[in-house]
Amino acid sequence: VKINSCFKKIFFVIISFLVFLFYSEAQTPDSSVIRSIYNEALLNGKSYEDLRELCKNIGARLSGSAQAEMAVKWSEQKMLSYGFDKVSLQPIIVPHWERGNTEVGWFQIKDKINKVNLLALGGSIGTNGLISGELIEVNSLEELKKKNSKDIKNKIVFINQKMDDTFIQTFKAYGSCYPIRGNGAVEASRLGAKAVIIRSLSLSKNEHPHTGSLNYNDSIQKIPAAAISTQDAEQLSTAIKNNQVTFSFEMDCRLYPESPSFNVIGELKGIEHPDEIITIGGHLDSWDTGEGAHDDGAGVIHCLEALRIFKSLKLKPKHTIRVVFFMNEENGNAGGKSYAKISSEKKEKHIAALESDRGGFAPRGFVSDGNENELKWMQSIAINFKNYDLHVFDKGGGGVDIGPLKNYFPEIILFSFVPDSQRYFDFHHAPSDVFENVNKRELELGAAAIASFIYLLDKK
Amino acid sequence: VKINSCFKKIFFVIISFLVFLFYSEAQTPDSSVIRSIYNEALLNGKSYEDLRELCKNIGARLSGSAQAEMAVKWSEQKMLSYGFDKVSLQPIIVPHWERGNTEVGWFQIKDKINKVNLLALGGSIGTNGLISGELIEVNSLEELKKKNSKDIKNKIVFINQKMDDTFIQTFKAYGSCYPIRGNGAVEASRLGAKAVIIRSLSLSKNEHPHTGSLNYNDSIQKIPAAAISTQDAEQLSTAIKNNQVTFSFEMDCRLYPESPSFNVIGELKGIEHPDEIITIGGHLDSWDTGEGAHDDGAGVIHCLEALRIFKSLKLKPKHTIRVVFFMNEENGNAGGKSYAKISSEKKEKHIAALESDRGGFAPRGFVSDGNENELKWMQSIAINFKNYDLHVFDKGGGGVDIGPLKNYFPEIILFSFVPDSQRYFDFHHAPSDVFENVNKRELELGAAAIASFIYLLDKK
Repeated sequence: VKINSCFKKIFFVIISFLVFLFYSEAQTPDSSVIRSIYNEALLNGKSYEDLRELCKNIGARLSGSAQAEMAVKWSEQKMLSYGFDKVSLQPIIVPHWERGNTEVGWFQIKDKINKVNLLALGGSIGTNGLISGELIEVNSLEELKKKNSKDIKNKIVFINQKMDDTFIQTFKAYGSCYPIRGNGAVEASRLGAKAVIIRSLSLSKNEHPHTGSLNYNDSIQKIPAAAISTQDAEQLSTAIKNNQVTFSFEMDCRLYPESPSFNVIGELKGIEHPDEIITIGGHLDSWDTGEGAHDDGAGVIHCLEALRIFKSLKLKPKHTIRVVFFMNEENGNAGGKSYAKISSEKKEKHIAALESDRGGFAPRGFVSDGNENELKWMQSIAINFKNYDLHVFDKGGGGVDIGPLKNYFPEIILFSFVPDSQRYFDFHHAPSDVFENVNKRELELGAAAIASFIYLLDKK
Repeated sequence: VKINSCFKKIFFVIISFLVFLFYSEAQTPDSSVIRSIYNEALLNGKSYEDLRELCKNIGARLSGSAQAEMAVKWSEQKMLSYGFDKVSLQPIIVPHWERGNTEVGWFQIKDKINKVNLLALGGSIGTNGLISGELIEVNSLEELKKKNSKDIKNKIVFINQKMDDTFIQTFKAYGSCYPIRGNGAVEASRLGAKAVIIRSLSLSKNEHPHTGSLNYNDSIQKIPAAAISTQDAEQLSTAIKNNQVTFSFEMDCRLYPESPSFNVIGELKGIEHPDEIITIGGHLDSWDTGEGAHDDGAGVIHCLEALRIFKSLKLKPKHTIRVVFFMNEENGNAGGKSYAKISSEKKEKHIAALESDRGGFAPRGFVSDGNENELKWMQSIAINFKNYDLHVFDKGGGGVDIGPLKNYFPEIILFSFVPDSQRYFDFHHAPSDVFENVNKRELELGAAAIASFIYLLDKK
């Protein structure tokens, strides 16, 4: 009898568990709202045409450029046209660097000239006319740092670190190569190099060079730095194995005085806690090549569309949902830093923020920097997304634009939208990051996923 | 004490469950094999270059064409070059239909001529010179069936059924529109129509028409049938709202006598149960437009590469793993039917089969037609794939090529590889189904997912 009663209790635990499983799979009021959100994005969505306008009517929009200011005006008008409660421009100061008109390079082995496709790294100084030198190849920053300055002095350093194909998440492969772009110029100059050339940070082998920001160090001589295409990097590396190679290039890029620019902000006022803010956003600026379609046209359009869907479906958020198009993520992050600082100065209450800056690909899910309880909440809402092919609800970082909020609002929870990462580095910072490489449905599904996630977060 | 002892037991159950969870997340011998499989696919993979050869050196390869026979020879040589245990050609008989040289159409409103992009549906009769008629639009096969024959007689029927954007799985949207292509000609002819034009089965709006097979019925007059691009369908539908529209087209497609062709088969002999066969495959034939890159070049290459990886890593399967490149999936399925029949006649033992025929996109998982126990097994192996972004382990159909095996081997379990479906119908049966629209990493990850899945299935 004792055992019997005990088994009954175990049986009860198991049954309760099964009942819980059953209910958690059943239709919920949330599931019909989420279905409406997806239908709005897929049937009446504006995201694809909005992205087309941003890419085709404006195009590349590096901070400080006329195109970036055109993008600011366009964004303001777009938010106004969607009837958001409050649309404003937040003044910031951004760097203004231009690559200029001349950008050409080649390598020479004996009497053979081989042109390479290159792009100055963002922020690089120009070459002040043609610059030539013996090329020396290293495969990582660590290898470079171990070199003697006599081996490097007056040479051009070629850092040929290949992104690791075996990382399933391509951002991890990018992260491990990022230092060659960020710090290659400083480390090469420290040893007396006259310039640095890096292999583009891309997993695909093709003819497109990929730019991106570099860092200089005020105490180290600035030297010019450029990225060559992965295809050219492979050819150059083969050539250099058995030959002395001379590399020559010219770039007339230069830094101009800082200019005024803006974050663009729109919001839907919360009906229960209007003073508590959930920020969603991406960055409006892009590199000066391609059209900034995936990076980060898709991200700002995702968030714009998410708020438009709320408005269109008359979903009244409890908290204020604010969409922010950050300026200057690519080369300074003035937008993200200023937004956080001004929010703090205004004594606003920021409870959460979500960033979309990983491209407009098919959604996989969301990551959060929250604690165990927050992760449990994320996992508890996963069931709502099973039929929408979202399955990533894990720990992870927020993003560059929203990151500074954490410094002023330690309690804030940061989220990042996670689309599939496989194709991202085919296009990232390259001439190929154009509208045509964004798929309409994948973009729309991203906007719907973000709107649905924010809907659940707001009512949590 | 009684209650105490009972809680102890409940406690024990919970702890056991937690221990089980912990172990199932921990490193297993399987996880290191799977990691090796992925590394081989991503670092030393042949899939992308093999697909390039198939698409660029051979191209479109409809059953009965010279290119299809070239593809057979190429496949045989490729399997031999990878050292598979046994490579053979299995003779089959296939239909031979050609679209010919003339394929042109337009619609006329008053004095205005509008050219449309069209493709004869596979198997259609030609028009026997130019054919013209008043166009009548319907939005579904059901709407057509309700019409009076006096409204249809001698007219050209335009079936403008839009694929439903709200299906998250695009194959479901395809499935619900499929009847307009399969049965539109029969149903229109039954009411006296002289020809039928359908809206292409695609979710994207662009200028490419999408072909595909149609069915005729011997007791109903055969009429010509063609698909027009979704863009043209929208324009035509707008035009027809307020105007009488005349549609004209000419196609000189025709059916030739049946021809001999082949399934191409290679295998790795099982070391424990060599007589028990696991078939993996896709179809070698394609439509006669584009290059059959996603449909189904990617599928055959996935399976070829999976077996090559086994060979290359010296993985010795317990059961015989057989890769089959089926011929004639697109317009008759002679390959799938013959393979099943011959397997039965030879009294082979077929325990499982897996098909890849949903394109070369980023993997999502696998579906199976097995019973509850089989589904439980699928779900039990899901943990091995979490770090590889696979999350679909559900019930679902096998596929056209392996389907006939079920008729002869009722115990067989059929599996289908499930990649992301969002972009598939942008390219399906269209001139845009070319190599350039397949992403290298997405293709490689598909091959690795299939090889890993087969590894686990074989040792189950």
